[in-house]
Amino acid sequence: MHNISEPTLLLRENICKANIQKMSQKAENNGLRFKPHMKTHQSAEIGEWLRKSGVEAITVSSVTMAEYFADHGWSDITIAFPCNTRQIDRINELAEHLTLTLLVNNLSTAKTLDQKLKYPVRVYIEIDTGSGRTGLSVNQMPKIKQLINYFKETSRLEWIGFYSHPGHSYGARSEEEIQAIHESVKEQCIELRDEVEPQFGNIEICIGDTPCCSKGSGFEGIDAISPGNFMFYDLMQVQIGSCEVSDIAVAMSCPVVDTFPDRHELAIHGGAIHFSKELLSYEEIDSYGLVASEKEDRWEILDGKTYLKSLSQEHGIVKCSKEAFEQFKVGDMVTILPVHSCLTANLMKTFLLSDGTLVNQMGIKA
Amino acid sequence: MHNISEPTLLLRENICKANIQKMSQKAENNGLRFKPHMKTHQSAEIGEWLRKSGVEAITVSSVTMAEYFADHGWSDITIAFPCNTRQIDRINELAEHLTLTLLVNNLSTAKTLDQKLKYPVRVYIEIDTGSGRTGLSVNQMPKIKQLINYFKETSRLEWIGFYSHPGHSYGARSEEEIQAIHESVKEQCIELRDEVEPQFGNIEICIGDTPCCSKGSGFEGIDAISPGNFMFYDLMQVQIGSCEVSDIAVAMSCPVVDTFPDRHELAIHGGAIHFSKELLSYEEIDSYGLVASEKEDRWEILDGKTYLKSLSQEHGIVKCSKEAFEQFKVGDMVTILPVHSCLTANLMKTFLLSDGTLVNQMGIKA
Repeated sequence: MHNISEPTLLLRENICKANIQKMSQKAENNGLRFKPHMKTHQSAEIGEWLRKSGVEAITVSSVTMAEYFADHGWSDITIAFPCNTRQIDRINELAEHLTLTLLVNNLSTAKTLDQKLKYPVRVYIEIDTGSGRTGLSVNQMPKIKQLINYFKETSRLEWIGFYSHPGHSYGARSEEEIQAIHESVKEQCIELRDEVEPQFGNIEICIGDTPCCSKGSGFEGIDAISPGNFMFYDLMQVQIGSCEVSDIAVAMSCPVVDTFPDRHELAIHGGAIHFSKELLSYEEIDSYGLVASEKEDRWEILDGKTYLKSLSQEHGIVKCSKEAFEQFKVGDMVTILPVHSCLTANLMKTFLLSDGTLVNQMGIKA
Repeated sequence: MHNISEPTLLLRENICKANIQKMSQKAENNGLRFKPHMKTHQSAEIGEWLRKSGVEAITVSSVTMAEYFADHGWSDITIAFPCNTRQIDRINELAEHLTLTLLVNNLSTAKTLDQKLKYPVRVYIEIDTGSGRTGLSVNQMPKIKQLINYFKETSRLEWIGFYSHPGHSYGARSEEEIQAIHESVKEQCIELRDEVEPQFGNIEICIGDTPCCSKGSGFEGIDAISPGNFMFYDLMQVQIGSCEVSDIAVAMSCPVVDTFPDRHELAIHGGAIHFSKELLSYEEIDSYGLVASEKEDRWEILDGKTYLKSLSQEHGIVKCSKEAFEQFKVGDMVTILPVHSCLTANLMKTFLLSDGTLVNQMGIKA
C-alpha cells in the first residue's frame, strides 16, 4: 500500500472469487445456466476466474465488449443490449466465429438483420418485467408473437426465448422487497412460457439483475441468470439489500492532499473521473462513497459518518466525524467504498490486487 | 454522419476555435496572461489550436496530464491541484525539463517538497475565494505568511503568488450573479496583494473558472486566467449564464435502438459510461442532456421538452415531446448536448470533427 501514489482501485480477489463461487453454486442448485455479465469488471483476467468456476457462456453489454472477450477465447456470448444494426459489419464478424445471441425487440431491427446478416445468430426478445427501460411487456403478446413469427420465417435469426433485466429491483430496500419483485418477474416468465411454448416449442428465459439473483429464492420459469455486479457489489447493493458490506470486493484508495481542521474535511486526489458521479442517499447521508477501515480479509465502514461529500473532476472532499478526522494527515491514503462499482471500474480501467498484481480491463493501453 | 455506428462525441472546430479566440482576446484586452486549462479536452491536437492563438503556458489538473502535454512540447505547465508528494519522483522528472508550477497549501507538503525536490519548481498558494473546496482563505493571513516565509527559506521552492478556482461561480444563474462573485474574487485578490506585496515583492495572481473568465468584467488585482471548460462549454454553463447554446462546441451523437410510441420515448446507445451521470435541473426538467437539432454552424435545443431522462451503464432513455417523437425511428442518430462537457469528453476519449477527422485525447490507445 505504501507504494500507491494516485487514485487506485483495489480488488480483493478472495471476496470476488467467493462471490463468483456463491452465485455459481446458487445457479447449479436451482438448475440454472450461469451466463455472468462482464460489464462490471470488463477484464479478461477476471473472466478466467469465471471460466475456472465452470462458466462457458457470458453476457456483455456492447459489440466492443463482445469483441474483446471473443479475442480472449469466449465462444458463446450474449450482447444484452437492444441490437444496433448500424454495427452490422462487426456483428457479422462476431457471428462468423461465435455462438452469438442478440436482443431483438422490434420488427424494424429484425428485418434489417434478416437482410444483412451473413451468418446465423440466436435471438432473445427482451421483456420489460417492470423496469420501464427497454423491451416488450407481457401485455404486448400480439407484438411478441408477431416478432416470433417473423423470426421463424428467417433463415439466420434463431429465436431462443426471452431476456429480462429487472432493473426495478434497484428500487428495493430489503430482501423482502427484492423477493416481491422476484416473484413478479417469475410470474411474468411463467405467463410468457405458457403463452408461447404450446405454439413455438421449448424456450430459454434468462434474467440478469444482481438483487434478484443474489437474494431471490425459487427460480420457477427461469432457465438462466446473467448478473454482473455481484462479483464486486458496492454500497448501492448494500442499500438494496443484495449483500453485506463484507461482500464488497472493490474500494478506491486515494491520497490525502490537504486537511481542514476547522471543518473536519480532507481533500483527496479522487474525483468524478475516478468515482463517477453516482450519489447514494444512505442512512441520512448523501455521499459518493463511504470511508472504510481495512481488515485483513474485508473492508468495514469506518463509522458511517465519514464520507465522500463532493466531487470535482479530480478533487474529492471527504467529510469526517471529529474522531475520524484525527486519524488522517497529508500524505496518507484513504480507502473509500464506491457507490456504483460498475461505473467506478469503468473509469479506473485497472485493478490492484492485495499481492500487488495489476489486472487490466479492456481498452487499457499496455 | 451516416457512417457513425456507436456513441460518438462530435466537436465543432469552428465554435471551439471561436471560443479560444474570444477568451484569448479578452485576456489580451485586460492585460492578463492566458494559461488555459487542458482538463476539458485533454488533447494534444486541441492544444495546438491554443498554441496557434499565442498560448505559451498551460494549466493541467494532474501529474499525468502534465506528463502528456510535456511530451507534446509544452514547457510551462501549472498543475492546478494541491500537490501530492507521493508523486515526487514524477514531479522531479517534470521539474528537470520544464518550468513547473505547483499548488502548495500547507507546511507538511512544503517540507516534504523541500526535502525531496531535485530541481527548482514555482509555487502558488491556492486561495479559497468562496468555493469551500481547497486552499487557504484571505482570513488565514498568518498561515499564508507562515507558508510564504517557509518558501523564502527553501532553495527549490520559488513562491510566485496565488491561484484560485472560484468554483462557487457554478452556483450563479445569470451574468449579474457571475459578476457579483467576480467582484468578490477581485476584492480578495486586491486584499491579498495589499497584504503581501509590501513585504514580499511583486506576485502573480491567477484565477481559473469559466463563468468569471467568460462574463466577468474588470480584472483589477488579477494577472492571469486559466479557464478550461470555455473551449467547449455545455448546458451547465448555459444555465449558469456563461454562454449561449450556440457557443457549445461538443455534442453526443447516439444510435436510436428502439422507440416506445405509448410513452414517447427512445432507447439509445449512450449511457453513464458515455455521458457521465451529471444531472441538470434546467427549466423544470431534470436531464442528463437535451436533444439538439443540427444547424450548419451550430446546434440548437430541439424543443426543450425532448431530453435524456435516464442512464444505465450503456442505455439512455430519451423522453420526447409528441412532435419530436414522430421525427425518430430505429436506426437514426440523435444528437444530445451534454450537461458537463469535461466529464463527457473524459469518458469518450475521442472527438469527431465535422470533416470526419478523429481527434484523440491522452490515454487513448492508437
